[in-house]
Amino acid sequence: MKEQVIINEVGLRDGLQNQPQHVSTDDKARLAAALIAAGVRYLEPVSFVHPKAVPQMADAAALTDRLPQRADLHYTALVPNLRGYEMARDKGYPTVGLVLSTTDTFNQRNLNMSLEQASESCERIIAAARADGVATRTYISGAFACPYDGPTPVDVTLALTRRMIEAGSDEIAIADTIGGGNPQQMKDIMAPLVQTYGPERFYVHLHDTRGLAGAMAWAACDLGIRRFDASVGGLGGCPFAPGATGNVATEDLAYLLSSAGFDTGIDLQALRAAVAIAEAATGQVLGGRILRWMASREAQGKTVCAP
Amino acid sequence: MKEQVIINEVGLRDGLQNQPQHVSTDDKARLAAALIAAGVRYLEPVSFVHPKAVPQMADAAALTDRLPQRADLHYTALVPNLRGYEMARDKGYPTVGLVLSTTDTFNQRNLNMSLEQASESCERIIAAARADGVATRTYISGAFACPYDGPTPVDVTLALTRRMIEAGSDEIAIADTIGGGNPQQMKDIMAPLVQTYGPERFYVHLHDTRGLAGAMAWAACDLGIRRFDASVGGLGGCPFAPGATGNVATEDLAYLLSSAGFDTGIDLQALRAAVAIAEAATGQVLGGRILRWMASREAQGKTVCAP
Repeated sequence: MKEQVIINEVGLRDGLQNQPQHVSTDDKARLAAALIAAGVRYLEPVSFVHPKAVPQMADAAALTDRLPQRADLHYTALVPNLRGYEMARDKGYPTVGLVLSTTDTFNQRNLNMSLEQASESCERIIAAARADGVATRTYISGAFACPYDGPTPVDVTLALTRRMIEAGSDEIAIADTIGGGNPQQMKDIMAPLVQTYGPERFYVHLHDTRGLAGAMAWAACDLGIRRFDASVGGLGGCPFAPGATGNVATEDLAYLLSSAGFDTGIDLQALRAAVAIAEAATGQVLGGRILRWMASREAQGKTVCAP
Repeated sequence: MKEQVIINEVGLRDGLQNQPQHVSTDDKARLAAALIAAGVRYLEPVSFVHPKAVPQMADAAALTDRLPQRADLHYTALVPNLRGYEMARDKGYPTVGLVLSTTDTFNQRNLNMSLEQASESCERIIAAARADGVATRTYISGAFACPYDGPTPVDVTLALTRRMIEAGSDEIAIADTIGGGNPQQMKDIMAPLVQTYGPERFYVHLHDTRGLAGAMAWAACDLGIRRFDASVGGLGGCPFAPGATGNVATEDLAYLLSSAGFDTGIDLQALRAAVAIAEAATGQVLGGRILRWMASREAQGKTVCAP
């Protein structure tokens, strides 16, 4: 009996939000269906953000209506503010994702708020959600590095995490938003948090921009973390395109964790159909490193072992 | 004061040995000089193998004469048998690398010997080297997976490692020859070895074929391992080309370890010149993931931070 890990698919949200090519609600619904067919059970499909700020998320309510509803499917909606929270709640989301960046600069650029203002905004959303019986997952964005201010001191990430837990956030996602972290930082952040709170309430959100997502994921896994975000085909992020990848690819994270003996529930062969849909919808060449290995094995007529 | 890690450059040997395009001694000497200029201090430049078996290594003696000799430069020659050992010794190599694969099949294909015969051959070379005052590093090849027989049981790798240590091998390189390992296996292998023998005598040799080299390197580093093989630009290996990479790229490993706070001695900007030489000499597109990130940053006119 293998131990289960949760891979939360954020391709439809984090993966698509900055895509230059408009992706239709139909394509998103097809992508969600293919992901679920491949075994994905946790998805963050939408953000209830103002459509002028993120046009790709303008169909959040419409896409929600197209998602299959089953007891084993777990959806989260990202909400930038109280108005977004209310929309997500009214659409029936049982869990919402909040975003708190680690620096004044990052919060100003994202939300036009100072760090203190953004912290208080999150506290208000958490309080509202608790009153409504909606669970909250707060992203500590830039937990390893800020795109404007450089490396994030561990104490800053720890203090914000503790503040959000004390405010009542059910889960915390420690997010390497720009792929600027390293596995030693992961240990330095997660070890004290796991010791105080246990591993169950923490997610890790990684970008593979500089090639360290696998090492950081393993550093977290080794400390007992069993919940990770990932994006099908590595879709999204790409703050330093071309060549630099964005979110860690779902297939690469699934291969890493399954090779190490965990049950991810994800079928890599079936996931290829989802990657193909994402490629067609975005006009990008996608696919994690394990898919390239599988393709090259097949090109040589060799067996591709189940990972 | 940062803790030092050793990155042993095997591009000239493991990286070139299977290249279809002949690489001249001049190009090899230029590549060695560029690597040394970038801060590389440990190199495995040659294999004293029969030229019919590995034509790219036919100039092992001639290349040796072209390598700079300095007190801070540490060279190893790979030797497949006693005859190769004697050639390496006579050329003045202070350390030789031996190869012991973990299965009968792999040893038959590599050396036309059974596992027991190959083990005894290594014991004879180790005994001869000890008598001559030459240090030995024994590669346990296929320590994680055999290309023919699949995953390698941890006990097999541990037993062969112990046997070679008892025979007097000064160092052991735990080698994921085909990139088929995972970080949990790394822990299962290295933890008991480090506990019994300490970390100092162990090297880890990784291929990034399925994208797990970073996670495996971190798993080893986290157990105290401070010695790693790597190949400039990811040169070599490529058992599943195209698309699948071979040896872990020196620049990717150096970035991982330096980001985590270690001193590798390697200057990534200077290493680019070595990658360019390797590309020109082999006709291949090379370069680890961190070089692609650096290039894309530069293309956007952004600063590339020292890692």
